Amino acid sequence: MTGRYLEDYQVGQTFGSGIAWIEAERITSFAAEFDPQPFHLSEEGAKGSVFGGLAASGWHTAAVTMRLLVEGDLKPAGGVIGLGFDEFRWPKPVRPGDELRAASEIVDVKPSKSRPDQGVIKVRVTTTNQKGDVVQLSVVNLLVRCRP
Amino acid sequence: MTGRYLEDYQVGQTFGSGIAWIEAERITSFAAEFDPQPFHLSEEGAKGSVFGGLAASGWHTAAVTMRLLVEGDLKPAGGVIGLGFDEFRWPKPVRPGDELRAASEIVDVKPSKSRPDQGVIKVRVTTTNQKGDVVQLSVVNLLVRCRP
Repeated sequence: MTGRYLEDYQVGQTFGSGIAWIEAERITSFAAEFDPQPFHLSEEGAKGSVFGGLAASGWHTAAVTMRLLVEGDLKPAGGVIGLGFDEFRWPKPVRPGDELRAASEIVDVKPSKSRPDQGVIKVRVTTTNQKGDVVQLSVVNLLVRCRP
Repeated sequence: MTGRYLEDYQVGQTFGSGIAWIEAERITSFAAEFDPQPFHLSEEGAKGSVFGGLAASGWHTAAVTMRLLVEGDLKPAGGVIGLGFDEFRWPKPVRPGDELRAASEIVDVKPSKSRPDQGVIKVRVTTTNQKGDVVQLSVVNLLVRCRP
């Protein structure tokens, strides 16, 4: 399996992912390096914050979602190469022990006008926890190769 | 300094940040955990890719930008709490040895209609490297407390 080319994607297709388990220790160590704020660093520090308890940095959630995408069923030939987002939100926080999945839906497929060997697919990526709550919602534009 | 409240922000204000130095080892170890694709894992694997050489995962760039914001001059009281983005792009890749800064500009300030104790500021965050190239551009909505 070398992956899918632009011609293999159609609007409405959906793709699943594996599961990522979020450990409290990784929430706090990720935050210590990249997002050192009390509500991401300890349960104690998160009390009384807007999160009401330890919550993962949104960037931790985003990074874990990327891992799920890269190893998931979307499989663009050439890799998962994001150009940017039309939408990007964290509707609910990620908590220690959460199990995350990322579902992808193709919402647009566009050949490039200037580069006949590539195009862009627009993908709605929904990251949910074990209760089905949406913890991240994004619409990303991915660069995809055309079939050689 | 307890931080700035909603009333302290005005459209047009700008805030700077420190500098983050991006090491090749952290590019590849971050990618191994969160974005395991050849062009983020080694120089060898990046040859012939769309990046033409080792490039940081966009999520690594995003996470480093968050660190610069959290420790930068924006300083919202209650912390840097992102609700979502109106825009989010990576115009150029981040390379080993790059020195990144994040400049913030306030583009909107809105009191909440339902919650008189908080509001939302819209901030254009521009991450640049040592040559002035923009490596990440985002417009983020941040939750900010009103002055008690």
